[in-house]
Amino acid sequence: MRQKLNFWIVGGDPRQAALARALAEDGHSVHTYALEQAVESTLSAPSLAGIEDAHCVVLPLPALDGERINAPLSRVKLPLSRLLDALTPGQLLCAGMLKPPLVGEAQARSLLLADYFAREELAVANAVPSSEGAIQIAMEELPITLHGARALVIGYGRLGKVLARQLRGLGVRVSVAARKYADLAWIRAEGLEAERSDQLSGWLCGYDLVVNTVPAPILGREELTQLKPGCLVIDLASKPGGVDFDAAVQLGVKAVWALSLPGKVAPVTAGLAIRDAIYNILTELGV
Amino acid sequence: MRQKLNFWIVGGDPRQAALARALAEDGHSVHTYALEQAVESTLSAPSLAGIEDAHCVVLPLPALDGERINAPLSRVKLPLSRLLDALTPGQLLCAGMLKPPLVGEAQARSLLLADYFAREELAVANAVPSSEGAIQIAMEELPITLHGARALVIGYGRLGKVLARQLRGLGVRVSVAARKYADLAWIRAEGLEAERSDQLSGWLCGYDLVVNTVPAPILGREELTQLKPGCLVIDLASKPGGVDFDAAVQLGVKAVWALSLPGKVAPVTAGLAIRDAIYNILTELGV
Amino acid sequence: MRQKLNFWIVGGDPRQAALARALAEDGHSVHTYALEQAVESTLSAPSLAGIEDAHCVVLPLPALDGERINAPLSRVKLPLSRLLDALTPGQLLCAGMLKPPLVGEAQARSLLLADYFAREELAVANAVPSSEGAIQIAMEELPITLHGARALVIGYGRLGKVLARQLRGLGVRVSVAARKYADLAWIRAEGLEAERSDQLSGWLCGYDLVVNTVPAPILGREELTQLKPGCLVIDLASKPGGVDFDAAVQLGVKAVWALSLPGKVAPVTAGLAIRDAIYNILTELGV
Amino acid sequence: MRQKLNFWIVGGDPRQAALARALAEDGHSVHTYALEQAVESTLSAPSLAGIEDAHCVVLPLPALDGERINAPLSRVKLPLSRLLDALTPGQLLCAGMLKPPLVGEAQARSLLLADYFAREELAVANAVPSSEGAIQIAMEELPITLHGARALVIGYGRLGKVLARQLRGLGVRVSVAARKYADLAWIRAEGLEAERSDQLSGWLCGYDLVVNTVPAPILGREELTQLKPGCLVIDLASKPGGVDFDAAVQLGVKAVWALSLPGKVAPVTAGLAIRDAIYNILTELGV
Repeated sequence: MRQKLNFWIVGGDPRQAALARALAEDGHSVHTYALEQAVESTLSAPSLAGIEDAHCVVLPLPALDGERINAPLSRVKLPLSRLLDALTPGQLLCAGMLKPPLVGEAQARSLLLADYFAREELAVANAVPSSEGAIQIAMEELPITLHGARALVIGYGRLGKVLARQLRGLGVRVSVAARKYADLAWIRAEGLEAERSDQLSGWLCGYDLVVNTVPAPILGREELTQLKPGCLVIDLASKPGGVDFDAAVQLGVKAVWALSLPGKVAPVTAGLAIRDAIYNILTELGV
Repeated sequence: MRQKLNFWIVGGDPRQAALARALAEDGHSVHTYALEQAVESTLSAPSLAGIEDAHCVVLPLPALDGERINAPLSRVKLPLSRLLDALTPGQLLCAGMLKPPLVGEAQARSLLLADYFAREELAVANAVPSSEGAIQIAMEELPITLHGARALVIGYGRLGKVLARQLRGLGVRVSVAARKYADLAWIRAEGLEAERSDQLSGWLCGYDLVVNTVPAPILGREELTQLKPGCLVIDLASKPGGVDFDAAVQLGVKAVWALSLPGKVAPVTAGLAIRDAIYNILTELGV
Repeated sequence: MRQKLNFWIVGGDPRQAALARALAEDGHSVHTYALEQAVESTLSAPSLAGIEDAHCVVLPLPALDGERINAPLSRVKLPLSRLLDALTPGQLLCAGMLKPPLVGEAQARSLLLADYFAREELAVANAVPSSEGAIQIAMEELPITLHGARALVIGYGRLGKVLARQLRGLGVRVSVAARKYADLAWIRAEGLEAERSDQLSGWLCGYDLVVNTVPAPILGREELTQLKPGCLVIDLASKPGGVDFDAAVQLGVKAVWALSLPGKVAPVTAGLAIRDAIYNILTELGV
Repeated sequence: MRQKLNFWIVGGDPRQAALARALAEDGHSVHTYALEQAVESTLSAPSLAGIEDAHCVVLPLPALDGERINAPLSRVKLPLSRLLDALTPGQLLCAGMLKPPLVGEAQARSLLLADYFAREELAVANAVPSSEGAIQIAMEELPITLHGARALVIGYGRLGKVLARQLRGLGVRVSVAARKYADLAWIRAEGLEAERSDQLSGWLCGYDLVVNTVPAPILGREELTQLKPGCLVIDLASKPGGVDFDAAVQLGVKAVWALSLPGKVAPVTAGLAIRDAIYNILTELGV
């Protein structure tokens, strides 16, 4: 990757603001548009003039809010088409959570579209703020210390791995439920208690905290009924989620569905992770 | 200690409510007074009648609110003298943070007064909720994850020890500042970076989080000036504290003075710690 | 899997002896043959008579020593053909490190051949004894404590993951070198220092211990030359290994090539891992 | 402490050799005598000539072997008196494990005698190599991995604290037995299982490893009888130790009494710890 590149960050939230600052600190030339409420004026461009010279144009997460660029921290209303018209064929456009309109329009203009949110290293990096967001919620909601508490983490994917280790690091007695034999072996190799996620019934009564990371119906009425009074349930699974929240309300089980934590609890860290992913994209493209 | 004892819990906050429940769950006969808004009616006594038979009468933390028993969760206004008049000479009264009026009055009535808050094991146990309270504050205030952040813990007493380990458990890069050679050796034996607390100037610019546990003027204007922009300062030291908050405000340094965390962040855990201390008192007294 | 099964363990080393004992303790009917020097007579069969009734016949690691069953702890010399002739078509034969003769012969007799050594959960479980074996070697060879030492683990596969965590658990300052972006992200998410394994030159002078887990030429003369005097090199990579041992000798670098550690340092644990893999095979086969 | 001092190291083992090298690397002027088989000739003095100019003369651990300086790595036989005669009144002599002859003789010559082995920071630092020595023994003796094993550490002094943490860091399920309420509270605050060391009987059957650090008869015949077959016992307590070894032999319990581990398993680390203690002595003396 070249030492000094020209970046344009268009739209976005505090993550993109952190991204812009980090790129500038790395010595790159950085311009932001439709982000004026979150960045210093020195980084803020008055218009899109000059964006055609950018080595890399970055769109937010998600990229679009309807037909417009997602720009919650700006007074500017920027239609996608207006942005794309300002770019030149072959120019690199980095965005996340790509949806049809963007993909089609970008192709129609022969732009080079790269999805940084689809990259494994970004997903791994985002597991950390998600895990800390869940821990913060547990600390805020529980009248006991996490240290010494018994917690069950359901799922041993990226988030489950990071969360189980951070919880243990706080002194929590952590069990992890998974399905695959290899995952169960990894859970034991990690020194954690392994449970079968397809055989949770009957094992749930001992936990003070249950965190689900699996996007499938895992904690239904039957499982929720078995929880001990005061047990906190946190669902980190993307829609449709893994908890029957209606049953939880009826049973008086405190259940919290927490989504998109990285941008909420640690926007700066999340922005740096986006930067690293973009650097990797540029390196792979030989820019 | 005998299997089944008769306890009276008078006044208090959620810690005393948790204490009452825990004692009852352990099979003891438990009565509470001036705590009716926090406990089940089954544990709540309508008057002090019968308290003279208690093997142990427990007062809250602090025991007094002026001349009255400290009872924030009650409509009852109970003067200390009225409570003590209901007790019999030689009866055991467990209280914390003892102040002259209580001590004098108790002696005058030849009551057996024990200070559970003065016990080392309670102080150690309380270090855990205090540490988690500080971590919760850091998670809420910082726009970065604790994982990967650089933190300085000042002081390696009970709280410093527990906090340094929990922070490291989350993936924080922890340095600990202490004065004594033996403490510095312990910090290294623990695998943490050791700094001299009497030579902080010049070392402070690298931290994202600084937590003080020493009740002495440690972070004055000069030290605060050296902190990196955005660094969060948390002072856990009891009065007079260790941070120059006026200077912090003037310098735009975010500084939080957090006191009495156990009762706030984990009242149930704090109540169980009080129970354990009381059990130890009873065991030592051969009750 | 059924509660009570009939197992025959034929040949093997202390791992198979531990396997036999564990199966018996689990309530199964267990017979061993060609393992008489390592197991109690109660588990030792005088001949192969009855093996045709076994639900599962287990061969060692590796299964063969030339044409014979690998049986270092027996006076019996058992040709593979003689064993297979004693089995009945469709009978289950569990073995590891399968080689042509066995596979062909088993098929010719329509035996159901399963390779437990090829199972991911066994590979994961074996990473633990391999890691501890490496740590034991480092403790035996180094004149310094691992606590506080700087170590580089090359490769972040199963073994690299487990070793890096155990080393850190001892207080070692661990860096891990990997190639893939996702692996580097995992190393950081784990709180370890990440290095690029394709850019080791220039970074090697600071380590007291370097452990390679990658079966490719990683530590050649150039890299070995950069190591600091007294640095210990341990190669855990299977043949051809990753260290230029000739260069190491010429340069006076202490380098140890440690293979097949599980059976050597923790045969009982290794035997239990084989048992778990076999149970999973039986469960999948619906036995 | 001054930047450049003149040190003489007389007698000793590899620890003193490491000490001499470390002092030289720190820029000090270093001379060794009666240590010629362990140090480079550049550090080795042919005689005691010039020792009277030393800012600090260091004796080994223990200082004496009968009437002579303890010098296992030298052909020189150096009587204490001959060494002391070479020194001048008021000169600083640092030694460890002081015994009467040395103390008396030093006083008679008005030498300034300092005991580095009596310093708390050295005792703390030595707990690390002692702990690793015990772990190495356990790895060498046990046929199972420490990861997943159940271990009991008896005593929660310096060594117990460090050992319990390192064992847990390897994935061992650690229980610690202590007597004082505060120690038990610390054990729990550390996230370890706490047991009462005065009530071990009945709790011992579950452990794979028992390590004693208390110099008192803790593991007698009765306790040893309760251990599970194959359980390894390691006694790290200085004389008289805490294990009934005769009973162990009769009961077929494998018991190892390991003393003076720092100098054996990590002489370089132990030497650096002596250096740090000596630096602290010099700083306190204002040298």
